[in-house]
Amino acid sequence: MSGSVLLAELIDALRCLPGVGAKSAQRMAFHVLERDRPGALRLADRLAAAVERIGNCRRCRSFSENELCSFCANPLRDKSVLCVVESPVDQSAVETATGFRGLYFVLLGRLSPLDGMGPRELGLDLLAERLRGGEVAELIVATNPTVEGEATAHLLSQLARDAGVRATRLAHGVPLGGELEFIDRGTLAHAFGSRQTLT
Amino acid sequence: MSGSVLLAELIDALRCLPGVGAKSAQRMAFHVLERDRPGALRLADRLAAAVERIGNCRRCRSFSENELCSFCANPLRDKSVLCVVESPVDQSAVETATGFRGLYFVLLGRLSPLDGMGPRELGLDLLAERLRGGEVAELIVATNPTVEGEATAHLLSQLARDAGVRATRLAHGVPLGGELEFIDRGTLAHAFGSRQTLT
Ligand SMILES: [Zn+2]
Ligand SMILES: [Zn+2]
Repeated sequence: MSGSVLLAELIDALRCLPGVGAKSAQRMAFHVLERDRPGALRLADRLAAAVERIGNCRRCRSFSENELCSFCANPLRDKSVLCVVESPVDQSAVETATGFRGLYFVLLGRLSPLDGMGPRELGLDLLAERLRGGEVAELIVATNPTVEGEATAHLLSQLARDAGVRATRLAHGVPLGGELEFIDRGTLAHAFGSRQTLT
Repeated sequence: MSGSVLLAELIDALRCLPGVGAKSAQRMAFHVLERDRPGALRLADRLAAAVERIGNCRRCRSFSENELCSFCANPLRDKSVLCVVESPVDQSAVETATGFRGLYFVLLGRLSPLDGMGPRELGLDLLAERLRGGEVAELIVATNPTVEGEATAHLLSQLARDAGVRATRLAHGVPLGGELEFIDRGTLAHAFGSRQTLT
């Protein structure tokens, strides 16, 4: 309860952020109004810019404000190794934790027919085309070790086999049922380094 | 690490929010981009509107986009009881937890000469004028039970005495060294109900 309608609206709007309930939304609103108005204006500006201008890279489907994201546009990245992840946040986890210098492909989901997530939604036609292009020598399957992630991995390994590309999977070490995003960097780096050929 | 400059800037900007570190800023950014772009746009809009249009009520100094906040402008509130709090967030805590139907005065700080917070910065001239106006019968001192809050309470009780107004203080029950904002509603409501005359 405050004496300002705009403040109440701000508190309500802050709840779109994950993990932000009524109490912390209120604290955030009061904090920025009392102590960091320039920071709040900058955040407003960056939120609007991100939502309006960030789309998907046409090559890897990750977030990008340009046709090609900065990974795909970087001539120094190794085009012969392609790492497939479910989401941009998983891509970011791999990039931060490992010394990987290849390229990525982002599924923007995982195989889940009941939710309408099939091969088309995961962009597998685009991926298959790329595998057939002959530039990729290894496909690193870095889906999450969940039931749906494993089903997705199975499909990806078939795709690689059809294209004559070697498929590898992150080594065990990733906890079962866990999500890449929440794994500590050391474990993820180890699992990444010990990835094994999919049979 | 992502392939988008705008995304990196958004993650950085989110850190102006209290309690948001690098990891949760990243999770928030990915979440809104993947799942709630309308919510993010609305938040951008509400942040900008709040920063640009919310100032201070000219009567009680709390946040308001109008000359008078909705408390001061409400003819149904009891003008004879005035509750003094340190900050808008404390005002909100009292309003939510108690059945208080009077009006507020917000110091926007507490007495702290070393930080340049003296009577002038706390708006005590405005408060003294109001007490002399004859409309206020009771001044409820709801500063925080910290050393500086107690010093502020002492000054406020002098102000009330000079104006011939009864000053009361929240009852014990508020934990020493605690902040109103973090006290559970039941404790705060009890302390508010058992407030005692300042001697
Ligand atoms: Zn890309
Ligand atoms: Zn007011």
